[in-house]
Amino acid sequence: MRRTGFTADHESFRQMLRDYLTREVVPVFDDWLAAGAVPRDFFRNLGKLGVLGMAFPAEYGGGDQPDFTYNAVINEECARALVALGTLQVHLDVVVPYFLDHADEAQRGRWFPGLVSGDLFAAIGMTEPGAGSDLAGVRTTAVRDGEHYVLNGAKTFISGGALADLVVVVARTSRSESDRRRGLSLLVVEDGMPGFEKGRNLAKIGLKVQDTIELSFTDVRVPVENLLGEEGAAFEQLTHGLPQERLSIAISSLAAARAALDTTVTYVRERHVFGKPVSYFQNTRFELAAVATEIEAAQAMVDRALAEHVAGELSPVDAAKVKLYCTELQGRTVDRCLQLFGGYGYILEYPIARLYADARVTRIYGGTSEIMKTIISKSLGL
Amino acid sequence: MRRTGFTADHESFRQMLRDYLTREVVPVFDDWLAAGAVPRDFFRNLGKLGVLGMAFPAEYGGGDQPDFTYNAVINEECARALVALGTLQVHLDVVVPYFLDHADEAQRGRWFPGLVSGDLFAAIGMTEPGAGSDLAGVRTTAVRDGEHYVLNGAKTFISGGALADLVVVVARTSRSESDRRRGLSLLVVEDGMPGFEKGRNLAKIGLKVQDTIELSFTDVRVPVENLLGEEGAAFEQLTHGLPQERLSIAISSLAAARAALDTTVTYVRERHVFGKPVSYFQNTRFELAAVATEIEAAQAMVDRALAEHVAGELSPVDAAKVKLYCTELQGRTVDRCLQLFGGYGYILEYPIARLYADARVTRIYGGTSEIMKTIISKSLGL
Amino acid sequence: MRRTGFTADHESFRQMLRDYLTREVVPVFDDWLAAGAVPRDFFRNLGKLGVLGMAFPAEYGGGDQPDFTYNAVINEECARALVALGTLQVHLDVVVPYFLDHADEAQRGRWFPGLVSGDLFAAIGMTEPGAGSDLAGVRTTAVRDGEHYVLNGAKTFISGGALADLVVVVARTSRSESDRRRGLSLLVVEDGMPGFEKGRNLAKIGLKVQDTIELSFTDVRVPVENLLGEEGAAFEQLTHGLPQERLSIAISSLAAARAALDTTVTYVRERHVFGKPVSYFQNTRFELAAVATEIEAAQAMVDRALAEHVAGELSPVDAAKVKLYCTELQGRTVDRCLQLFGGYGYILEYPIARLYADARVTRIYGGTSEIMKTIISKSLGL
Amino acid sequence: MRRTGFTADHESFRQMLRDYLTREVVPVFDDWLAAGAVPRDFFRNLGKLGVLGMAFPAEYGGGDQPDFTYNAVINEECARALVALGTLQVHLDVVVPYFLDHADEAQRGRWFPGLVSGDLFAAIGMTEPGAGSDLAGVRTTAVRDGEHYVLNGAKTFISGGALADLVVVVARTSRSESDRRRGLSLLVVEDGMPGFEKGRNLAKIGLKVQDTIELSFTDVRVPVENLLGEEGAAFEQLTHGLPQERLSIAISSLAAARAALDTTVTYVRERHVFGKPVSYFQNTRFELAAVATEIEAAQAMVDRALAEHVAGELSPVDAAKVKLYCTELQGRTVDRCLQLFGGYGYILEYPIARLYADARVTRIYGGTSEIMKTIISKSLGL
Repeated sequence: MRRTGFTADHESFRQMLRDYLTREVVPVFDDWLAAGAVPRDFFRNLGKLGVLGMAFPAEYGGGDQPDFTYNAVINEECARALVALGTLQVHLDVVVPYFLDHADEAQRGRWFPGLVSGDLFAAIGMTEPGAGSDLAGVRTTAVRDGEHYVLNGAKTFISGGALADLVVVVARTSRSESDRRRGLSLLVVEDGMPGFEKGRNLAKIGLKVQDTIELSFTDVRVPVENLLGEEGAAFEQLTHGLPQERLSIAISSLAAARAALDTTVTYVRERHVFGKPVSYFQNTRFELAAVATEIEAAQAMVDRALAEHVAGELSPVDAAKVKLYCTELQGRTVDRCLQLFGGYGYILEYPIARLYADARVTRIYGGTSEIMKTIISKSLGL
Repeated sequence: MRRTGFTADHESFRQMLRDYLTREVVPVFDDWLAAGAVPRDFFRNLGKLGVLGMAFPAEYGGGDQPDFTYNAVINEECARALVALGTLQVHLDVVVPYFLDHADEAQRGRWFPGLVSGDLFAAIGMTEPGAGSDLAGVRTTAVRDGEHYVLNGAKTFISGGALADLVVVVARTSRSESDRRRGLSLLVVEDGMPGFEKGRNLAKIGLKVQDTIELSFTDVRVPVENLLGEEGAAFEQLTHGLPQERLSIAISSLAAARAALDTTVTYVRERHVFGKPVSYFQNTRFELAAVATEIEAAQAMVDRALAEHVAGELSPVDAAKVKLYCTELQGRTVDRCLQLFGGYGYILEYPIARLYADARVTRIYGGTSEIMKTIISKSLGL
Repeated sequence: MRRTGFTADHESFRQMLRDYLTREVVPVFDDWLAAGAVPRDFFRNLGKLGVLGMAFPAEYGGGDQPDFTYNAVINEECARALVALGTLQVHLDVVVPYFLDHADEAQRGRWFPGLVSGDLFAAIGMTEPGAGSDLAGVRTTAVRDGEHYVLNGAKTFISGGALADLVVVVARTSRSESDRRRGLSLLVVEDGMPGFEKGRNLAKIGLKVQDTIELSFTDVRVPVENLLGEEGAAFEQLTHGLPQERLSIAISSLAAARAALDTTVTYVRERHVFGKPVSYFQNTRFELAAVATEIEAAQAMVDRALAEHVAGELSPVDAAKVKLYCTELQGRTVDRCLQLFGGYGYILEYPIARLYADARVTRIYGGTSEIMKTIISKSLGL
Repeated sequence: MRRTGFTADHESFRQMLRDYLTREVVPVFDDWLAAGAVPRDFFRNLGKLGVLGMAFPAEYGGGDQPDFTYNAVINEECARALVALGTLQVHLDVVVPYFLDHADEAQRGRWFPGLVSGDLFAAIGMTEPGAGSDLAGVRTTAVRDGEHYVLNGAKTFISGGALADLVVVVARTSRSESDRRRGLSLLVVEDGMPGFEKGRNLAKIGLKVQDTIELSFTDVRVPVENLLGEEGAAFEQLTHGLPQERLSIAISSLAAARAALDTTVTYVRERHVFGKPVSYFQNTRFELAAVATEIEAAQAMVDRALAEHVAGELSPVDAAKVKLYCTELQGRTVDRCLQLFGGYGYILEYPIARLYADARVTRIYGGTSEIMKTIISKSLGL
């Protein structure tokens, strides 16, 4: 069925990006995979193309289009090109919004130009070893000392941390025993600050082009002017950002599922077994028909959610539903598709193998499926 | 998320129907179930309310609203009220369109007023014993003899056949060995025509309020003026009607799934086990969250399909997808919901038991899930 | 793979029973279904055949074979013959053991001969309206008054209650606030005792040959000599019986799944669609291969559990596993098989439709799948 | 439930191996993973322990125990220790049997001592690029030239190929157009033979300790005395070996699933989220109870199949069933277990991540699930 919500402007942006990825990224992506990292220049190139700055005010060089539809297009096109760029997604869909929403005038001047140009790449440090996604468990502390916060603690699962110039760190600036999700603040820690150490890159099942590291902070003196938003407001800031983060994951998960379907359809038509194309077998056709059907449902759901989000009306519950649905669908899809490749499906030079390995984390990050179900069940009055 | 596609007119029609069902049907529905049939007066009452004639021209007493959205509302409200009225659905969504699309001037005069008022109830006879939904296998013949067709054969799985005044019968009027789906025509057989016998009511797992019978035709002389549309055009006529039939099934299946969810949410909040409400248990909450999530996806898909259908653009493939998705979802949903009722889920006085028993046929009628997958896989180029 | 655990004696018993069912029951089973009840004579005939008395001592006319393998054979053969006889199963596998284990000398004399001959049919009343399977919630009371207990309360979901001459009723004979599962006793209530009322037959999704009724007790004076076992021991008595009850359900569920597979294999080889037998299609073959594979696993599991039970070593946890596995498998199996019948699968004259309708309760009775999982998870140390 | 089929001898062999793996392999396994290979000495150590030679005749230094139960123990203990050693499994369960069954007196003298001591490691080359597991598609040719076969062609997916001293290669020694699975022979190609090239190691989703390479043969002159068995008999030889190969995969897949369950049970009891151990949540407990139940069924099935195999009676169909069941179960299990680890489940230093990545291939190699279903469906007469 026809998608809705995309204007001619969105589509020409899509085409521009698709051309760029096809021409500049796809041919070298295997090198990036081998290196385990996206080269820094890539972000500057995206900056030049205007991709990074779409949502920023024109006065800082931005595109003045605070329209999440563009982010959706970016996620979809990266997935379509089979270049999973999780760090870019986190930067644009999760971290940049904190700057856009909360940076004061001085901070806008300091950071917006670099964020627009790609000279500054940003990550977020929320999860702590042993605490998971429970904000009540944050143990990183930022103690005010004159014009600085003295930051101590550790963070883990930092997507793009190795690359990051700026890390938005969730730290405890005051203590409330009655509600331990209070008293948290967002501090922008800059690469190179004394006491700020970037740890090892965690070896993952997939997402090999994306670093995921641990960070540690030992008496890092963060200037007060690096506080993003109000002191103590992090819980509301983070909560406010969750629906967009989850919608973003849903969009890219669905797009990855669609990419899996597409590459599989191509494969089963070309590849022969027992003297017949794999597509000859009813099992193949039924599996892919089932996959295509679920994708059609998910696309309608995602587009409706996107429209609501663009209108500023996407509820946390609906974001949870779309995240849950699309990531579970992605898991089923890559598993069913891979099977049709036989032994080749297990070999990483086939995109389906990478799609499979990459997919397993989406049911976990941004809030596990179990957390999504908890949110959704509450909305049912349970 | 918010549904789209329903105007204030649709919503006031919905409210009117909901009130009527609540007031007039729900209180007596158990009697209908016990009788195994919908009383004839019910259709006349719907006629008076204008429900049956919405799509008919005003000159025949109709509402002049050839807008399938009203049919969608009817299906949704019946499901919501837990009064499954499959015969009404077949009459309005499947059979009436053949009259609206193909009746000539004289036929319009003869039948439209009765169809609008509820004095005429119509069914369709397509499937034959042993032939399933394969039109190539139709063995019922209509041999032209002067101003009549002489009809011989048998049909089965006729929803509402016992009640029907008119049955649109698919018969072979000529023989083409090269393409056995050709040479079929639609004849309107009238109750009481000599040689037209209504057979026994088939005992089904569910759908107890709806008769499903066999019909037999022995030298039934059907006047030529009862031919609906062109002779030999039935394959195209039927094929043209399939997307609407499948969308209709999708809509009511989804609405039934939603009704299952609603009645289960109510139940698990009230019912206690081991000293706690059933809703206390995480398994209950996760099951219902998963169900609610799938329903949200399906609703977006259905509404998109409905919009395309109203615009005259719903493709057979997309109709197959939405039928497949919603009926499979319905099957999963009623099974998961029933389980949460414990032993009561198996007792027919609980609506969930009826929803379960009724649901099993939707993955079969209107084209099985396997046929849907075959259609969909072809669209993938497989 | 070959089954183990059945001796030549078991197999000749199996053959005898199979012949009897084929000859005497299968031809009239549709009449029983229509009547909604097993005729009383059937039990007397089973008595004559020695089926009912296998486990009883020879001095009461029994077979002196307290070997549950015979019960397994009975369950398997009934399922194989497509004659679901839940009341027989409850009588033999659940109720009779309470008599065998706990009847005192006088009770043995009063009841054993009738139980062996089929003149006495027994049911059990445990579940109460609103209390489910939680023994702590039993509200039926039996207050000692001289040589009687005065019984008041109600029971529901009584399989075979309409037929029963004797009902073993779980009643509260004393009150312990600290542990509400204590103070329960088993009383044998006899049909016809004043104040003992048999209620209406609950209409169910399936199991149409088996009555499932409510019982009510209003000042029923039950003689003290009808106490089965020690006063206050019911919790232990019932708990002790659970593994056998669950194994019994597992056995018959698996046998029903196998019957579904068998009838479907036959059907898909005979029935043609689109000019080919249904068995021609890969989807058909893969579905049935998957079903057959699960049945093979389940059979190995059941036979191992049966061997452990016969050796007196089947743990409650393992009984829970085998019950959970086989009933869930049965649910999947009947659903997958029915689908291959197309519209005929929904028509009750096809055994698959009855197998489907009957199956839905096995995941619920004898302890729901959720209760099984709770038991199992505890054994994992969770 | 208690397993059957293991004697005291088997159990002491198990204990010996378990001690060895715990002491010598587990502490260094991460190094092996980092190196992407098992060190050659490991095999010599296994040789010294008698593990490699159990099935060989005593005259060659073997254990004289041609009892597949020992192989089962080896697979189970490697899985239990979380040291997946696929190459060892292929060597012992797939390749060695060809030597044992088909080596002539001279070959026994040449190769048995090395196979027993671990000085010779063997692999098998069956699959060809583009031909999958269809023997009819073998294009590698061995043309007789005097006392040699001249071998040309390529093989892929060779487990342990990099390590192998001997590769049993399936080659076409004559051409039969009527049955292209005929005319195939097994040739033992030795490392270092001119024209025999070992290709690159294929990067896989998992199984990182195991090389999987391509082999190419360019005019390799293989002496006639390296023919294993009769010329032209490879189809029967390979077919004969399939049940054992599939049982072997079933055993290790089930053991890996059990290892996944065990590591997850430990994790969820220790790890806290939202202030509670993960095991506190009902979802956790129900997921693991479901997993444990399936494992119990699979274990009964595997033990029955193992007993039949040891008795020389395991049919190809039953081997297909047990392979299908256990590998599908493994897939479900690792997916469900991993989810309970949250983000850590995606990090390879957690065994569950490796178990997940390793598992995806078992539904493919040794014959895909689709091939298993094809075999099974034929046995149903479909």
